[in-house]
Amino acid sequence: MDQEKRIHSVLSNKRSKGIELLQKLVQQPSRRGSEGEAQAVIVEKCRQLGLEIDLWEIGDEDLRNHPNFYSDRTNFSGTPNLVAVKKGTGGGKSIILNGHVDVVPEGNLDDWEFDPYSGVIRDGRVYGRGTTDMKGGTVSLLLAIEAIIAAGISLKGDIIFQSVIEEESGGAGTLAAVLRGYSADGAVIPEPTDMKIFPLQQGSMWFRITVKGKSAHGGTRYQGVSAIDLAYEVISEIKQLEKLRNQAIQHPLYDGIPLPIPINVGRVISGDWPSSVPDTATIEGRFGIGPEESMEQAIAVLKECVERMNGRHEWFRQKPMELELFGARWLPGVLPLNHPLLEVLSKNYEAIIGKRPLIEASPWATDGGYLSNIGNTPVVVFGPGKTEMAHDANEYIEIDKMMQAAEVIAMTIIAWCGVG
Amino acid sequence: MDQEKRIHSVLSNKRSKGIELLQKLVQQPSRRGSEGEAQAVIVEKCRQLGLEIDLWEIGDEDLRNHPNFYSDRTNFSGTPNLVAVKKGTGGGKSIILNGHVDVVPEGNLDDWEFDPYSGVIRDGRVYGRGTTDMKGGTVSLLLAIEAIIAAGISLKGDIIFQSVIEEESGGAGTLAAVLRGYSADGAVIPEPTDMKIFPLQQGSMWFRITVKGKSAHGGTRYQGVSAIDLAYEVISEIKQLEKLRNQAIQHPLYDGIPLPIPINVGRVISGDWPSSVPDTATIEGRFGIGPEESMEQAIAVLKECVERMNGRHEWFRQKPMELELFGARWLPGVLPLNHPLLEVLSKNYEAIIGKRPLIEASPWATDGGYLSNIGNTPVVVFGPGKTEMAHDANEYIEIDKMMQAAEVIAMTIIAWCGVG
Repeated sequence: MDQEKRIHSVLSNKRSKGIELLQKLVQQPSRRGSEGEAQAVIVEKCRQLGLEIDLWEIGDEDLRNHPNFYSDRTNFSGTPNLVAVKKGTGGGKSIILNGHVDVVPEGNLDDWEFDPYSGVIRDGRVYGRGTTDMKGGTVSLLLAIEAIIAAGISLKGDIIFQSVIEEESGGAGTLAAVLRGYSADGAVIPEPTDMKIFPLQQGSMWFRITVKGKSAHGGTRYQGVSAIDLAYEVISEIKQLEKLRNQAIQHPLYDGIPLPIPINVGRVISGDWPSSVPDTATIEGRFGIGPEESMEQAIAVLKECVERMNGRHEWFRQKPMELELFGARWLPGVLPLNHPLLEVLSKNYEAIIGKRPLIEASPWATDGGYLSNIGNTPVVVFGPGKTEMAHDANEYIEIDKMMQAAEVIAMTIIAWCGVG
Repeated sequence: MDQEKRIHSVLSNKRSKGIELLQKLVQQPSRRGSEGEAQAVIVEKCRQLGLEIDLWEIGDEDLRNHPNFYSDRTNFSGTPNLVAVKKGTGGGKSIILNGHVDVVPEGNLDDWEFDPYSGVIRDGRVYGRGTTDMKGGTVSLLLAIEAIIAAGISLKGDIIFQSVIEEESGGAGTLAAVLRGYSADGAVIPEPTDMKIFPLQQGSMWFRITVKGKSAHGGTRYQGVSAIDLAYEVISEIKQLEKLRNQAIQHPLYDGIPLPIPINVGRVISGDWPSSVPDTATIEGRFGIGPEESMEQAIAVLKECVERMNGRHEWFRQKPMELELFGARWLPGVLPLNHPLLEVLSKNYEAIIGKRPLIEASPWATDGGYLSNIGNTPVVVFGPGKTEMAHDANEYIEIDKMMQAAEVIAMTIIAWCGVG
């Protein structure tokens, strides 16, 4: 029996165990700061697989002083990072398999059909917060490793499995793993790409613009300067900048995407009294960073836009608006389209799924930015979850896709690391 | 010595006592819910003047069930309303002198040069929250009554002095006084008109419009519908409505006013995450009501505007925005330009100040709307405070103006009520 058949056969036998593992993981609500119990489930699985466990609490000085550490969290105790290694026999290429254990909050419970932490199965889907983003993907990774071991296949290169915290809040977990010395010849991150392959990842950063107007009584509003009106002028300018930046994106993987690197205005807060002219407005948003752009370049562009408005606008010349970068930032990432990792993954996808994969640019950042930019590890993002279900109510994953992803990833690992 | 000379002479002697009274009043921070101590100072003064005191806690069923009761406050204990009457000898016209004891919050303390509740005197001004709006005006009223009594002038008509709570929150105090049976042949309210005379008062009401968009990840913002963008369309439409309504205002007293009845957008709240497309926006504002318009008409106009947008706009046809009237409402008020009260006040102003008064339309509502619309009492607004200092940091009143207003009001009372 050839390798592919053995892997397929093992995975078929492990299907119900894989589903159980996902349910168990979903039943541990691993929101930020509470990742410990879900992480324990994964550690237990890695021990069973005989992997070398490296479990540690992140947050040392190296991490906190790193220029790309953007977290507002300082206490990481009780929520360890995990790296579990299956050493190869030597002479092969190594691979990082990276998943994050943290999930975003469940949002409004009324919007959920089932308890978000139940792991209920219906019509071939497992439901719950984190199924798609990305505990289902993590189970695909673990099943892939398990299948290789159970099939008795010995690899030359190392498999470095990572289950990290903090991805949803800017990636301090993966950055900590990179700073701890983990790098490889390639990496797969099974974020929810809906079985598409993303070699390019958009970066992003958050910004806050504070606009100052002049207060007045609403009955004589003409004596004031409305910060709300000013905020809308700023938003128009931001939309103009977005348009220019997107027109400049030439990469072919963006051909079908209406807006490759959006600037999203996510929050506007202005005023505190219906009958007063508001004297302050706060605009918060997400600034998309092109895969081939650096974060420094993106920051410079945004700063220049704000300075231009401050210089040109009569009111802003007196009361300049202020720009602040706050919260998380995600580094962009690029894998060249002729990179062997992309070729190996695509070839195995085609062999197993029976059609050519869709290769696209991602509309969001992943921890891949840290692996590639800081850790010099080439990254491709490919996973079983449905992109639009991430962060949504009634999040689910299709079990068949989770199993297919496991198979594609297992065969990719074998081809990448080499049998020996 | 004629009446005017006697009144002038008495007031000159009472100047320093009047300043002390104002300082004492300012030193009681009579923000909403804490009006009791300032009110006690006024009651004490009224007792000294020998007035008949009617002090009661408002909030009975008649008030709470009244269609024009818009308060969100249900417990008024410890903060009584005051009416203090100087009965006339009979056969004359009665006059209500109405002031409110509540003040708006002091705002940001950093913006104040002095403690807002110190009552510091500098360069002929008393500083502090409520000096202009309108404890200074109330002191003018009390000085006017005191001067008439001290000058030994006996009046035919009743003087009905009112010191009410809740003006800044919609006028429940004055409404309660009206429902308790207080009305008169005329009323003067010394709100801060900067010594101008306001026979017309703009009404107003608060509105809240809730706009629903569609959420999406900021990286694929084109898959969502931004509630911030929708809110901006709504605000543009509101500005258009404001323009049309103001073009229709013909009253000559609005000739010099750039925007007779503004619609002020005072608050916009939208979104809760920088990298999500916001699915809800809340717009709160103040809708100016023309002096000759009814509140019902104004409500109908605003409702129609919202319904028109909901019917015409493709997105709003699916997800209609919602309109809510909330919080306080202030009735407009009109005194005909040939009303004898306006003539008497103007004549006495000219005699004492030495020039013709400026007669204008007010840019805001006062409790006069209740006195005239519900209590059938003709109202004129005239007071010593500076309009633009109301609700502002470093609020102050000029002592000379407070004394001049007292004199003009005293002579107006004498002429209106008749000596007998």
